[in-house]
Amino acid sequence: MQDNYQMYYDLIEDHILDFIPSVDSKSETLYDAVNYSVTSGGKRLRPILLLAACDFAGGELKTALPYACAIEYIHTYSLIHDDLPAMDDDVLRRGKPTNHKVYGDGMAILAGDALLNTAYEVMYRDLIYYFDTPQCLTCKINAGLTIAKGAGISGMISGQASDIENENKVCSKEMLDYIHVNKTGDLITAAVRAGLYLGGADDAKFEKLTSFSEYFGLAYQISDDILDVVGEANEMGKMPNVDKKRGKNSYVSLNGLDAAYDRLDELVVKAVKTIECYYDNAEVFRDLALKLKARTK
Amino acid sequence: MQDNYQMYYDLIEDHILDFIPSVDSKSETLYDAVNYSVTSGGKRLRPILLLAACDFAGGELKTALPYACAIEYIHTYSLIHDDLPAMDDDVLRRGKPTNHKVYGDGMAILAGDALLNTAYEVMYRDLIYYFDTPQCLTCKINAGLTIAKGAGISGMISGQASDIENENKVCSKEMLDYIHVNKTGDLITAAVRAGLYLGGADDAKFEKLTSFSEYFGLAYQISDDILDVVGEANEMGKMPNVDKKRGKNSYVSLNGLDAAYDRLDELVVKAVKTIECYYDNAEVFRDLALKLKARTK
Repeated sequence: MQDNYQMYYDLIEDHILDFIPSVDSKSETLYDAVNYSVTSGGKRLRPILLLAACDFAGGELKTALPYACAIEYIHTYSLIHDDLPAMDDDVLRRGKPTNHKVYGDGMAILAGDALLNTAYEVMYRDLIYYFDTPQCLTCKINAGLTIAKGAGISGMISGQASDIENENKVCSKEMLDYIHVNKTGDLITAAVRAGLYLGGADDAKFEKLTSFSEYFGLAYQISDDILDVVGEANEMGKMPNVDKKRGKNSYVSLNGLDAAYDRLDELVVKAVKTIECYYDNAEVFRDLALKLKARTK
Repeated sequence: MQDNYQMYYDLIEDHILDFIPSVDSKSETLYDAVNYSVTSGGKRLRPILLLAACDFAGGELKTALPYACAIEYIHTYSLIHDDLPAMDDDVLRRGKPTNHKVYGDGMAILAGDALLNTAYEVMYRDLIYYFDTPQCLTCKINAGLTIAKGAGISGMISGQASDIENENKVCSKEMLDYIHVNKTGDLITAAVRAGLYLGGADDAKFEKLTSFSEYFGLAYQISDDILDVVGEANEMGKMPNVDKKRGKNSYVSLNGLDAAYDRLDELVVKAVKTIECYYDNAEVFRDLALKLKARTK
């Protein structure tokens, strides 16, 4: 897997700025603020999943690249807005001061807005290019719609809203699952499904990989909750123990650390089992899931 | 014009909530926050321009309706974010408390994000529906891309960024024009051009109506600057004299009220002249431009 994983990662790193429209010199600060967060590293998990899913389905990576960057723009905007004082009030992200600490709250709001909008501008531009190429237009439209739904009012944003609404009160386990699935899981599932659309996957692959990504997404958020308690700031690139300080519900706060590790194990086993029929071709997905148990960042 | 104008307005009012995806009951507050701003009235200028342009080009209004609502969602999100304490810190909008005064800053940020994302979700859904109908797919993709560009990092958002960057300092007249054209003009021009795409307009109509909307957009913002000085809160539904209090550059602060009225007149004359060749069919546009000289809200 390492080779493919590294190839996807390098592809994203090499092209992450390629799809951001150029701006007038009068808007340099806005562009700098966008650039600052987009190029500040990060695991590139969602775009890697998108590229891997396209590859797995037999599609071409260059077809999927604009969509992979678009989903990373969406993820990055959500982090910029999440970090604002009005939301999670974080000062450190990926080992650097958060966007608003550098550019101010107003500019950070606009940089986030710009990234969200850019994601769709990129995907719309790609639809226009279709008319000169033989690629599948329906697949591209479905990929864009999948991302829009995963990122939107019935996806990621609803999870973020329930998350801040439940601060400083103990929520039900059902509500916590709802928050985790929507806030984190939906965009991860959207990344995988968008990649499958772009690669022209068959129904069986959609079914299996969708199940995989649902288990994986929830497992990822639980590993995040664990990391918040056991992680080190210098490895994570963000502050630890913020869930408790901020009165956030987490899998650890509601169920304890042991139960969180157990649930993580169980979800990783389920995720891996779902795709075992694709043994040779699903290595990247399997390894990503197995690695969740030993996350340090 | 009154009849067509009223018909467009009623169409928007009747359907403005139709395209917002339903949400789980756990996300009721987010939906309420979105609903609050979307249904709080407003002039519906951008969607009316979009419908009028589609109609003018000979298209069907029902084809344009999702796009008209989408552009109003984008306009509404930009107002919610603009009103935040980190940006313009406004407490009154359309005669009601601003979104963040009712729902808190964090939820207001998310409600804005949700509306921006919803605009694209709506337009993407509409592309999927195409496959069952004989409407022009290229036109729809061009309409969506036009809106994305007008709203994006090289359009509206760049104007907002330059606007807050130039607070509390006197900017050049060139910079003020840049702010006005981008912040206000670009989304207005996008509304008109998207409507023309959806209606299948010919090149001449694109050329004339684009010029019209560029003059109109700048005139609209100058009338806004004038209104900020001469308007009454109870008629405008927002506080007057905020430009000065907030250290904002405006056409009035840089050039004086008389020069602002002169420039407004000049732009309205140019706008009207541009479309005089379409006399009978461009009534709505002409009347909207002429009305700018007597705006009270």
